[in-house]
Amino acid sequence: MAIVLIRQDGKTASWKNALKAKAPGVPIYNYQEDHPREQVTMAIVWKHPQGTLKAYPNLQCIASFGAGVDFIFEDPGLPGNLPITRVVDPVLASDMSEFVIAQVFSYLKHLKQYALDQEERIWRPKAYRRIADEVVGIMGMGALGTVLARDLTQLGFQVRGWATSKKTGLATPCYSGQEALGEFLTPVTILVCLLPLTEQTRGILNKPLFSQLPKGAFIINVARGGHLVDADLLEMLKTGQLSGAALDVFHDEPLPKDHPFWDLPEVHLTPHIASVSDQDSVVPQLLENYRRLQKGQALLNVVSRDKGY
Amino acid sequence: MAIVLIRQDGKTASWKNALKAKAPGVPIYNYQEDHPREQVTMAIVWKHPQGTLKAYPNLQCIASFGAGVDFIFEDPGLPGNLPITRVVDPVLASDMSEFVIAQVFSYLKHLKQYALDQEERIWRPKAYRRIADEVVGIMGMGALGTVLARDLTQLGFQVRGWATSKKTGLATPCYSGQEALGEFLTPVTILVCLLPLTEQTRGILNKPLFSQLPKGAFIINVARGGHLVDADLLEMLKTGQLSGAALDVFHDEPLPKDHPFWDLPEVHLTPHIASVSDQDSVVPQLLENYRRLQKGQALLNVVSRDKGY
Repeated sequence: MAIVLIRQDGKTASWKNALKAKAPGVPIYNYQEDHPREQVTMAIVWKHPQGTLKAYPNLQCIASFGAGVDFIFEDPGLPGNLPITRVVDPVLASDMSEFVIAQVFSYLKHLKQYALDQEERIWRPKAYRRIADEVVGIMGMGALGTVLARDLTQLGFQVRGWATSKKTGLATPCYSGQEALGEFLTPVTILVCLLPLTEQTRGILNKPLFSQLPKGAFIINVARGGHLVDADLLEMLKTGQLSGAALDVFHDEPLPKDHPFWDLPEVHLTPHIASVSDQDSVVPQLLENYRRLQKGQALLNVVSRDKGY
Repeated sequence: MAIVLIRQDGKTASWKNALKAKAPGVPIYNYQEDHPREQVTMAIVWKHPQGTLKAYPNLQCIASFGAGVDFIFEDPGLPGNLPITRVVDPVLASDMSEFVIAQVFSYLKHLKQYALDQEERIWRPKAYRRIADEVVGIMGMGALGTVLARDLTQLGFQVRGWATSKKTGLATPCYSGQEALGEFLTPVTILVCLLPLTEQTRGILNKPLFSQLPKGAFIINVARGGHLVDADLLEMLKTGQLSGAALDVFHDEPLPKDHPFWDLPEVHLTPHIASVSDQDSVVPQLLENYRRLQKGQALLNVVSRDKGY
């Protein structure tokens, strides 16, 4: 039994060292080195090259390095029937919540505009917004969305959630399904997207949706670039239906140099840093599932192939 | 009995209308118009021209339009022995807290740097900081500081306060006096100044104080420009003892075009907008004191001439 790591972002060595440090006896390979493929039972992957998983005849589990698994389902060479796991990390959830709080308050207090004014030596006070003025709508009420909803509620924001399927037992009012989307959106002044990317949610942030928000609403997308129809956002910013957007994720990353988002002061662009998997917190989860695999026990945080998350 | 309004920032008409709307029978004058000076019993002032108060022989009270009264004590022509009042406004306190929260989170998540990177079309992820990494120190534990301390504590920050004189009954650990300053500063990674400006606190944000913070600490000054020794901040930013500063207040406002603060990316400059007196909330307070004056009752929110706040 062995583990293979498949990612292309230059962070493989660092993850391998972190895993080795906690499990010195486990054989762990980088997929780019020579290694006994038939021994590999677990593949830990992040945006792996499509088709690479087919090279492992005895694979028993595919684990995402992060909370997202959309790139796994997008692989046409995905082996059938193997369990797929994702990271459910309390640090990931609190990091995400902290980042969204940062973008919400930066919007309320016009901090980006002041940063740009400072560059031009312009002293230009603007009237600020307040917590009491806002209704925050969170699309996606899973592990990340519920923590964010709790934190924003505690700060005094009015908060409501929306999910593709019905959720029960939540402390936050939660709407579900396409039929409740309009009612959910009506009062929302700040809309946060934390949905998983599936066939159902791809392109959900589009003109018909934006048109149901109050004029001047603000969008925060910290899920996936694929949720957003870029051209629709550009049009809605131009008409003033939306006052701005904080975008951390994009269809192509890094965002291509010629993309119109770069030039817009009302787009608050960050380079996919809302929430980065923390090795100290993720490594024990990955190794726990490897041990369960060895013992034939049920794995933690298995995703649904039907739902796609 | 009558009220005179003395301010030079072009907002007098708006305040006069707001006061008149709530108290149609009370004579209220702009100090620049012709008016019966001997009838005036209450002067409501904001950065009034020094000496103007001497023109009112029957003045019984000087009221600040805001929370600060430093400009009143700086007037060498200040009539002796009259009560001086200030605004104690829950909206002012929550506005201030929201602004400081915005600057704290913007610092943790490098939002200003990303705004500048966007201008240059640079995709450059930086490791972020977390609530759990920070100890926030609040200098000034009055009406504003205690609300901020409560909000930051609720968000999960470690928070400690410091005040010039001993405070009791606070929920936040609070140090007091010059002798406890060093102990207060030792672990503080984010230092917020909310002190009143007095002879005791002028220039308190200086090199000896900054040197007692951990290397790389961040400063937020939302009190008065006079608290900060500008040259000391510039030196400490250069050596790296401080990693940055969010400044909302300055010795001269608007900040002169040739001031070195404009050019520094690690200075987060805002044009004195942390907390702006809200007419809806301030007007009733001012009129309540006018009514008390008429009836000979004790005024609300009288400041101490000894303490200067």
